[in-house]
Amino acid sequence: MAVQVIDKGTIRGRRGKALHLGKGQALKLINTHGHQVVDTWAFNPDDVREYLSLEHTRPIIGKIYAEKGDTLYTNKRRPILFMEEDTSNEKHDTLIAACDIYRYNLLGCKDYHDNCTDNLRAAMRQIGIDEVECPSPLNLWMCIPITPNGEVVWAQPSLKEGDYIVLRAAMDCIVAMSCCPQDMVDIHGKGAKPTDVSYETLS
Amino acid sequence: MAVQVIDKGTIRGRRGKALHLGKGQALKLINTHGHQVVDTWAFNPDDVREYLSLEHTRPIIGKIYAEKGDTLYTNKRRPILFMEEDTSNEKHDTLIAACDIYRYNLLGCKDYHDNCTDNLRAAMRQIGIDEVECPSPLNLWMCIPITPNGEVVWAQPSLKEGDYIVLRAAMDCIVAMSCCPQDMVDIHGKGAKPTDVSYETLS
Repeated sequence: MAVQVIDKGTIRGRRGKALHLGKGQALKLINTHGHQVVDTWAFNPDDVREYLSLEHTRPIIGKIYAEKGDTLYTNKRRPILFMEEDTSNEKHDTLIAACDIYRYNLLGCKDYHDNCTDNLRAAMRQIGIDEVECPSPLNLWMCIPITPNGEVVWAQPSLKEGDYIVLRAAMDCIVAMSCCPQDMVDIHGKGAKPTDVSYETLS
Repeated sequence: MAVQVIDKGTIRGRRGKALHLGKGQALKLINTHGHQVVDTWAFNPDDVREYLSLEHTRPIIGKIYAEKGDTLYTNKRRPILFMEEDTSNEKHDTLIAACDIYRYNLLGCKDYHDNCTDNLRAAMRQIGIDEVECPSPLNLWMCIPITPNGEVVWAQPSLKEGDYIVLRAAMDCIVAMSCCPQDMVDIHGKGAKPTDVSYETLS
């Protein structure tokens, strides 16, 4: 049966989006401009206290990065998403919290700064969910190599325009994404500023 | 002024304990038998939704392990604990979720198995807090080296009887601990089974 595009759209740079995926459906996330980190979460729609948990995923997949072919698990150790395709072949970060007002304050920002934590909350409110934890996100296209001593390196991904990832839902879920508004640290690529990404949901 | 022991006690093997620390007070945790992993959490007593968060700590300390001399931060990026002493000089794990009923089910356990997640909840209820998240724990004396490819290795710590850690409170906090009841995977040391640890709270 041919793959059908059920829905598609754009997530504006510095903003978030949450959407429902039925079990077996997939999200294709397209890095339109080739340099945008996307913080990504997944929740059980029947109980948002069950969510994609990287601390539960790492011991099951036996790795600290997420890559093409990896299944991602909830805090009940159930499969929730499967990374079916990734044209970038990136080692996606699982270690670093979503940015938040406190992060930007520590970086010297005095005023409100857009941030992934608030983007998650706004995106979830937009689909009717008022209260949600901010679990540690899967940081798609974010490149954090670890040195042999365990030091965290802030590197940049090597992407090209239109690189995409397909995440297949292993259970009914809500997927939330934030086009990370980080513009005080080079994280999207050398000198790159936050941009739009686009998405399609697939049968 | 001499250090005063305010309180002391034993945490039974396979069980948990939560206690209050005032800002500036310290917890001395003693690995009595020299082979016991202790999952450890810390919460703001005025709002337990603020807690020691390893995903927020890693980017600030720039490392994936916690060691003597490190400050640990909350999900509001405030200092909550400082690892003032550690006679083991271990690189303590920050990456792996607390064990839970799902973990033991996946390991083949058909009946209820003691676990750190339930120990946290029981310990918090014991001091009057009914509802609490189970954040990713600081796994004291748990040794998880990472290979250059990002693979997780289940290693064992090299401890001696009586090794101890001192955690100094950077703010008023509740510290919760669980003597990890893991007895299906060698994590406390080759062939070692869960044992008691003891603690002192210090001025």
